[in-house]
Amino acid sequence: MLIQSRFPLKALQQVSSKRFNSSSLNPTIKNQLSNPPPIGSIIEARGFVKSIRSSKKVGFVDITDGSISNNLNIVLQGPDQPKFKVGQSIVVKGDWTVGKGKQPFELKYNPENPQHAITILGDVTDDYPLQKKATSMSFLRNFPEIKHRTSTLGSFLRLRSHLEFKLMEFFQSRDFIKVTPPLITSSDCEGAGEVFKIEPLNPKEPFFGKNAYLTVSTQLHLECLALALNRAWTLTPCFRAENSNTTRHLSEFWMLEAEISHVDNMDQVTTFTEDMIKFVTRSLVESSHSTELSDLGAGNGNDYLNGTYIEKDVVQSRWSNILSAERWPRMTYTEAIEYLNKTLPQDEQLIWGDSLQLKHERLLAEKSPIFITDYPESQKPFYMLKSANYNAENPTVTCFDLLVPEFGELAGGSMREHDYQVLLANMKQENMNIEDMEWYLNLRKQGTIPHGGFGLGFERLISYLAGYDNVRDISAFPRAPELCNC
Amino acid sequence: MLIQSRFPLKALQQVSSKRFNSSSLNPTIKNQLSNPPPIGSIIEARGFVKSIRSSKKVGFVDITDGSISNNLNIVLQGPDQPKFKVGQSIVVKGDWTVGKGKQPFELKYNPENPQHAITILGDVTDDYPLQKKATSMSFLRNFPEIKHRTSTLGSFLRLRSHLEFKLMEFFQSRDFIKVTPPLITSSDCEGAGEVFKIEPLNPKEPFFGKNAYLTVSTQLHLECLALALNRAWTLTPCFRAENSNTTRHLSEFWMLEAEISHVDNMDQVTTFTEDMIKFVTRSLVESSHSTELSDLGAGNGNDYLNGTYIEKDVVQSRWSNILSAERWPRMTYTEAIEYLNKTLPQDEQLIWGDSLQLKHERLLAEKSPIFITDYPESQKPFYMLKSANYNAENPTVTCFDLLVPEFGELAGGSMREHDYQVLLANMKQENMNIEDMEWYLNLRKQGTIPHGGFGLGFERLISYLAGYDNVRDISAFPRAPELCNC
Repeated sequence: MLIQSRFPLKALQQVSSKRFNSSSLNPTIKNQLSNPPPIGSIIEARGFVKSIRSSKKVGFVDITDGSISNNLNIVLQGPDQPKFKVGQSIVVKGDWTVGKGKQPFELKYNPENPQHAITILGDVTDDYPLQKKATSMSFLRNFPEIKHRTSTLGSFLRLRSHLEFKLMEFFQSRDFIKVTPPLITSSDCEGAGEVFKIEPLNPKEPFFGKNAYLTVSTQLHLECLALALNRAWTLTPCFRAENSNTTRHLSEFWMLEAEISHVDNMDQVTTFTEDMIKFVTRSLVESSHSTELSDLGAGNGNDYLNGTYIEKDVVQSRWSNILSAERWPRMTYTEAIEYLNKTLPQDEQLIWGDSLQLKHERLLAEKSPIFITDYPESQKPFYMLKSANYNAENPTVTCFDLLVPEFGELAGGSMREHDYQVLLANMKQENMNIEDMEWYLNLRKQGTIPHGGFGLGFERLISYLAGYDNVRDISAFPRAPELCNC
Repeated sequence: MLIQSRFPLKALQQVSSKRFNSSSLNPTIKNQLSNPPPIGSIIEARGFVKSIRSSKKVGFVDITDGSISNNLNIVLQGPDQPKFKVGQSIVVKGDWTVGKGKQPFELKYNPENPQHAITILGDVTDDYPLQKKATSMSFLRNFPEIKHRTSTLGSFLRLRSHLEFKLMEFFQSRDFIKVTPPLITSSDCEGAGEVFKIEPLNPKEPFFGKNAYLTVSTQLHLECLALALNRAWTLTPCFRAENSNTTRHLSEFWMLEAEISHVDNMDQVTTFTEDMIKFVTRSLVESSHSTELSDLGAGNGNDYLNGTYIEKDVVQSRWSNILSAERWPRMTYTEAIEYLNKTLPQDEQLIWGDSLQLKHERLLAEKSPIFITDYPESQKPFYMLKSANYNAENPTVTCFDLLVPEFGELAGGSMREHDYQVLLANMKQENMNIEDMEWYLNLRKQGTIPHGGFGLGFERLISYLAGYDNVRDISAFPRAPELCNC
């Protein structure tokens, strides 16, 4: 790196090389399993009781703390074994030993050893709902405050955290600046009117001096920042007041948006999007998440709340679909209509200008992720750049939807119109309030740059990669019409 | 790592080891300066014109693209030099050569070389406001869409992105799961009533089936997740409808919150908080951000928009204050009152139970960051654990505020009451709606665990580390009473 510090920071750098205490916290089970203490040492482990088995001579208690999907097995020696209930939080002090069977380690508790101890930190009620048996997701939704202790939902959360970390690495390595566009906005980016209005609980006059809404997409603000910083991305909540109850929609969701200056052609954007999704998927193949998700697969009876939700084959085929092609196909909307009409029965033929429905998207992405580009102008927002071969008869814009097998749309993007006069004309045609949007138009007056970008619903990405197709269980506390239960 | 993949993913792993194209985008100036192309090669560089100097024989144009604070110098050879305006976005194709003076590299453009080229992508108006001269922040606030192209505001954004990346690394290495608690909530965490109410633009009945608000703190939901995952953290927007116009408050801000299960005593939480802040500060000392911020220091006339805002000495003394002590002092609120009364004049003496004002906080943190612990119960929210030496006369809770020199409060945290009966009594005493909060209370019924955590306003941390004390310029698009201008 070229840059040299010109700060006189020698003294600080000396201090900074000292090792600070990083172990102020009690160890997690993840830490104990991945950096195991010496065999034979006496250690404390902490977690929830997940399952209990016992015989006359010996008892077994599996505990989990959610830091990892793996359980730690506690072996209770001797006939006078303490009694536990599933769900209790406990601390066990015992001997760290080599495990039997599949488990590399286990913790042996001997009631006759005065150095050993078991403490029940928190008891459970007799009707504690998370027992060692398969349940349904709809059953779990009744317990929003404790359902994340289950294997499946815990895995979703660990997967989400991992993906966010890997996305951060990806964008960082490509010189993107992570930014935070506002959520409270006075402009409706998509112009669809499906926004939430906000005001103080006890309003006197408009708090912000004008009407204020929750953002539906941060793109317009992101463009300001990408023009200033060359490349900008964000992972931020967005809000839609659509009254739709589906497995693919939330009223509050997180959106990954990236915006790139100095783009010569949209293929740079689609290639970048493809690189990004392949990068995070490869990181799953190479990490423990492949184990974690496969543990949730059907037929694994070792654990409660397995067996019903995640099909190992589904996960594997999705990851494989993403990674196996060197380059995903691209097809224009116009070509897609022709392609579909070869397959569709006579009474379902499409004509140019029709919207692609979910079943059409799944046909197009039958074998591989695919970018469908250059949709009709009328189907897309005002800010998209006209296609290179734009014609008044079948007018299209330089945009794409990324469709993935079994699922449909995962991401969408476009080149942005960077010419002031054309953008102004687009906005007038849509009867937008030009005065309110002058700040956005101004970007095209002052040092405009060809640029493009994309957005991706984060819960949808997690859902797709986890092989589980209901975003309401991917979001930790889902918000939807009639759903704001805690 | 103990975990082995049980997925039959060999084929995928082979594919994943292939190198994918990661250079679909045009290079940034950061990339060109840190991974320089071979001297003598012809390359293209892209950026905004930042300053222009010319003589008869040679001209100089500095360009910047915001990916880094450094400019790239363009040398225009020969007498017929093209004319530029500050703010134009341009592409220059020329010879990559060794730089003169402080610059390691420069780009030479020769109009007689047919392979060289200059393109003006975007012109500017004659009144383009970001000229090569010092301006004030209040002047820049008039241009929310382009102000981030200035050195100072660009540096704040790059600093923010860096800090977020380092925080991610820090929490990841300590087994924390990054989570996203909801922003739309039906409960008021702090009970202060300063919340925003939300509803669809065209409401029919309550969209969510009940009143819904924007969260003021995600802590209650974060506790659910930390109990399920052992350790959870979030960096997420929060909202306050306070009608306060200060340099320290925003209506929309980002809050870092961390929640930790299995905490034996609050010293574990304060030590962890201290470790975290030292970790990110050390990363600044060791990175190019020390240069970037010092470039903004007074007296550097090389660049526009320097010279007025960031005092190099302020930045350095803050970083030094954070890093120089092995362990920051801890003092209880009761001790703090005694300490302050030794310093304060007779007519400003405090009595036990008084709130600490900003000037008191600055006295306590005169030389070093300091944790003030165990505040009076009446000053703190219902969920805090009573202090170990709790007494009815001077009742206190196990909590802390982190105060830093010149600034005041940077973070606050506590142990949480984990006993069901005590928490219920606390809530009744505050006349809270028990039914609405049953989900939260239930955490203390089902496998409760001693836990604690803290929250930190992210803009305040950036502000403090950047040596610039107005969060309204730290937030890219600040929201405050009467302020929602784009």
